[in-house]
Amino acid sequence: MKILVVGARGTLGRAVVEALEPKHEVVQVGRSSGDIQADIADQASVQALFKEVGPVDAVACAAGDCAFAPLLEMTQEQWNVGLRHKLMGQVNLVRFGTPHLRDGGSFTLITGILSTEPVVSAASATLVNGAVEHFATAAAIELPRRIRINVVSPTVFEESMEAYGALFPGFQPVPVAQAAQAFVKSIEGHQTGRVYQVG
Amino acid sequence: MKILVVGARGTLGRAVVEALEPKHEVVQVGRSSGDIQADIADQASVQALFKEVGPVDAVACAAGDCAFAPLLEMTQEQWNVGLRHKLMGQVNLVRFGTPHLRDGGSFTLITGILSTEPVVSAASATLVNGAVEHFATAAAIELPRRIRINVVSPTVFEESMEAYGALFPGFQPVPVAQAAQAFVKSIEGHQTGRVYQVG
Repeated sequence: MKILVVGARGTLGRAVVEALEPKHEVVQVGRSSGDIQADIADQASVQALFKEVGPVDAVACAAGDCAFAPLLEMTQEQWNVGLRHKLMGQVNLVRFGTPHLRDGGSFTLITGILSTEPVVSAASATLVNGAVEHFATAAAIELPRRIRINVVSPTVFEESMEAYGALFPGFQPVPVAQAAQAFVKSIEGHQTGRVYQVG
Repeated sequence: MKILVVGARGTLGRAVVEALEPKHEVVQVGRSSGDIQADIADQASVQALFKEVGPVDAVACAAGDCAFAPLLEMTQEQWNVGLRHKLMGQVNLVRFGTPHLRDGGSFTLITGILSTEPVVSAASATLVNGAVEHFATAAAIELPRRIRINVVSPTVFEESMEAYGALFPGFQPVPVAQAAQAFVKSIEGHQTGRVYQVG
């Protein structure tokens, strides 16, 4: 398959590329790195991306910014980061990518354990992750030509514990490679409308 | 208690007012009706609302617009309706209302069965309802002074079947008064971070 990996140079993206490369043609997309540059929050950029890469079999998203701050201190600009990037950025991939997906192709989006296990200062991430997970269940019943959509929702990664571990007290980390396998399950499998919890 | 009911003149809002009025002082808020006018999508309007009404014991929201259209035909403007009104409008009530809530006060937000039972042309409603439900679980662990937050998620109302029934094949409707009782449960009860499914 020809697979677009968005956010390919992040911790998760690299692991997804590594898991897919042995069997697939992977096109790495990043905001400022990778084979092609695109900003998923920018509709024109997403449209240009799909025009450039042509027909693909799968889109895997490992990108999506959210701002973290105490609930009552979050500014509108901070709320907008998650709404524009991780939420509508991923919706943009589906809106503008579907016409470029081959029959039976798939979208795999990214959320995270904060959707169901909130922690302090992460209300935007919980809101956005929940929104993406629910969106996928709705999109699954409307996508044409047997195109599928699933979500990977991992806990914190062992590789990120040094940077983010303090935010996740008592959360059991998983190797990022385990989350990457959930992308493989979504892409090479045949389910749709699923949220794959990892960890 | 002094209770703000937002969207007080809609089908649900009227039932919520009716359920609360025997025991409480209800202030009815509408975009263009009620005791006070406010547009929850407009931050300044929400701030002015709370400044005008002063300290309250509870905020009950029965308002929130969403646009309905086939997934791949939804325009950005249509996506924005739900994001600005039903999603961030309700978040605005919490952001700007919390300083005006008395200790132990509560927010009760509104979603709907589409969060978990998607139908065609309702991807925005599913996304937004999911976002609000997850947001409430996150806000519940950060709100100060024992302020609580819950969500009421009703199925279609018997009173709305003529207008919307065709969108909900096989869904068992409930009387709107039953959804109003879930608001009473949230406001007079002591739980927080809950999503009360009705129907």
